[in-house]
Amino acid sequence: MSVNAFYAQSGGVTSVINASAAGVIETARRHADRIGTVFAGRNGILGALAEDLIDTGLESAEAIAALRTTPAGAFGSCRYKLKSLEKNRREYERLIAVFQAHGIGYFFYNGGGDSADTCFKVSQLSQSMGYALQAIHVPKTIDNDLPLTDCCPGFGSVAKYVAVSTLEASLDVRSMAATSTKVFVLEVMGRHAGWIAAAGGLAADHGIPVVILFPEIPFDPPAFLARVDALVKHHGYCTVVVSEGAHHPDGTFLAEQGTKDAFGHAQLGGAAPVVAQMVKEALGYKFHWAVADYLQRSARHIASATDARQAYELGQRAVELALEGRNAVMPTIERTSDSPYAYRIGSAPLDQVANAEKFMPRDHISADGYGISDKGRAYLLPLIQGEDYPAYRDGLPVYVTLQNHPVAKKLPPFEISK
Amino acid sequence: MSVNAFYAQSGGVTSVINASAAGVIETARRHADRIGTVFAGRNGILGALAEDLIDTGLESAEAIAALRTTPAGAFGSCRYKLKSLEKNRREYERLIAVFQAHGIGYFFYNGGGDSADTCFKVSQLSQSMGYALQAIHVPKTIDNDLPLTDCCPGFGSVAKYVAVSTLEASLDVRSMAATSTKVFVLEVMGRHAGWIAAAGGLAADHGIPVVILFPEIPFDPPAFLARVDALVKHHGYCTVVVSEGAHHPDGTFLAEQGTKDAFGHAQLGGAAPVVAQMVKEALGYKFHWAVADYLQRSARHIASATDARQAYELGQRAVELALEGRNAVMPTIERTSDSPYAYRIGSAPLDQVANAEKFMPRDHISADGYGISDKGRAYLLPLIQGEDYPAYRDGLPVYVTLQNHPVAKKLPPFEISK
Repeated sequence: MSVNAFYAQSGGVTSVINASAAGVIETARRHADRIGTVFAGRNGILGALAEDLIDTGLESAEAIAALRTTPAGAFGSCRYKLKSLEKNRREYERLIAVFQAHGIGYFFYNGGGDSADTCFKVSQLSQSMGYALQAIHVPKTIDNDLPLTDCCPGFGSVAKYVAVSTLEASLDVRSMAATSTKVFVLEVMGRHAGWIAAAGGLAADHGIPVVILFPEIPFDPPAFLARVDALVKHHGYCTVVVSEGAHHPDGTFLAEQGTKDAFGHAQLGGAAPVVAQMVKEALGYKFHWAVADYLQRSARHIASATDARQAYELGQRAVELALEGRNAVMPTIERTSDSPYAYRIGSAPLDQVANAEKFMPRDHISADGYGISDKGRAYLLPLIQGEDYPAYRDGLPVYVTLQNHPVAKKLPPFEISK
Repeated sequence: MSVNAFYAQSGGVTSVINASAAGVIETARRHADRIGTVFAGRNGILGALAEDLIDTGLESAEAIAALRTTPAGAFGSCRYKLKSLEKNRREYERLIAVFQAHGIGYFFYNGGGDSADTCFKVSQLSQSMGYALQAIHVPKTIDNDLPLTDCCPGFGSVAKYVAVSTLEASLDVRSMAATSTKVFVLEVMGRHAGWIAAAGGLAADHGIPVVILFPEIPFDPPAFLARVDALVKHHGYCTVVVSEGAHHPDGTFLAEQGTKDAFGHAQLGGAAPVVAQMVKEALGYKFHWAVADYLQRSARHIASATDARQAYELGQRAVELALEGRNAVMPTIERTSDSPYAYRIGSAPLDQVANAEKFMPRDHISADGYGISDKGRAYLLPLIQGEDYPAYRDGLPVYVTLQNHPVAKKLPPFEISK
């Protein structure tokens, strides 16, 4: 008997989340005897609540294959966390009504920690509300902060972007330092965990003097400034990679300076301009700063081949787990060796994944707190291996935009709680 | 008789200026009967004044070939403009003393508009001070603002970076716009001319709603906000590409808000956060912003193959012009066809190049001032064609660092004027 599947993307998108989508859809298509249509939620779980489903069966094999090298969320994503069954029973009843109306028995949710929580709640519907459903979470987060998996799809590509960008911009600064900029500050994502900032440390292996400001290490201005000064005096320049989550000992983010503009509005800048200005004032060095923001997580043009492959494999494995009868689990990466890098795909129970965050272990950070240790390097290096270039046409990457045909609605409208 | 050559890099470096260096050095090596050693100035013209010369003859053929795919300035660059002969005669006398001491009869200067001025002044030494020297300028500037050449090496690669980044980040925003960011603002370089910002307009061909803020078009807040609002209402999101040189009708840069932080310091931010905040306040849309800064001009990993090739060819042609007995000229790109793209290498007299700036022609900008016209598109598109990836090892690009052996000094020290 063929049962339909639901797939949705959740939270911040990445340059390889669509590779997971391709893994799910292509694997489901290979099991057409057991899985009917894969319906995608338009804008994540909101699509399920609104009965706004996309029929992926109408997309060509070529279009689905092209997802493999297309960044961002092909079906739309959302930031929306389901409340508990006790607090919002009508949402769960609606989900079941939609799934029932469209013959959906498999639920694949592609997201990070908050999304794992939503997926876990959905996985309990079978038990709590008597609707037969298997829910499998497909991990995804550039923040790399999910527990029980060695790494998270999306992270390796951001790490590669940050390592490459840090190296390239630092060579620029090195060229000009004699008469111009001596300190370059690059702000990267990672509100709570310093995994992304850590990737800047890989440029240090290429002779670049790099200072990293991790969220895990409370900011110590005198020590930081002394470090920058020593590097500039020795090398003529240095590069600072600052996590957006870097903060003072009291928890205040570096970016929060309590500053106002002429209209009394809160200061706009990120952590990078704050750090750059601090260097200028204390040490007098000419600076430049960059904020990579979305560029880093959408940069499919410089994706890690390892990351893109794992993203696909975890999507594929999620479907296999469902076909094996599993529920409330997430396929994971289990590293078996750093060098040569080797891993196998495992799985973890969702109740242990949801709402937990994995920070940089202290022993992955150098003793002085401003770089990565050998352990950190051994962890990071395999994840940025390999290039996996998209095709180009007329100078730009060929990224697919799906047709995203809506499925005819069968139910009355539903008002989504704000 | 074999005469030595001097080569130096000047001004802001690019991702392909070293390709021009490879063109100069490899071509000189092929004419060993007429050109002896190519001495590079360490940190541009400062290296000549300080007699701080690098013997490129000691670099292997492999190392010089690797310059072809290595960003930034392999010999160091500088921001230093020679004064006129009348105002600082001792600097010119010093240059002649250094050139004479090292048997230098060819001067190749690789830079933008200010550097063309320095190169022109040096080219007049033969006439004004009786020292036999031929000076050839090798064009280079990401700003693309040199006259008499269809384009400038360095620009095509920045344009490709901006077009690719605008496309990728916009796909990210499109995915999330239903519940999250609706307006993304990317700040790019170009203090006076909007060529770089214009490249963001190429993403519009891929269905992205893009608003460009050019330095050539005085900023009109109500019209801009109306445009953003209309695009968000129609597409659900939009991307703003703002030139760092965008300014109000009175000439004040957008980034200059006259704002102070809590310590009374001038506001740090660039144009992007200012524009983003303006959108938020007027329209209430959630925003994100990025400042690409040095990342854009050092991004050799996504260089335009057309740009890299032209950079090499202009270095090569500069040496050939010298061997043809020319002085005070710059090799140029003469476009002969947009589609299929075709060009030939020409040359222009330096006195007409120095200190002139080429802005975006109004007819390259769309009628409403917020995008590129068909003419602009036809101009830009050929320049971003082709990928020219560096080799990678262990996940990062293999960029060469030369040995840069110093040449033994023969003269007493010289104090460089500040």
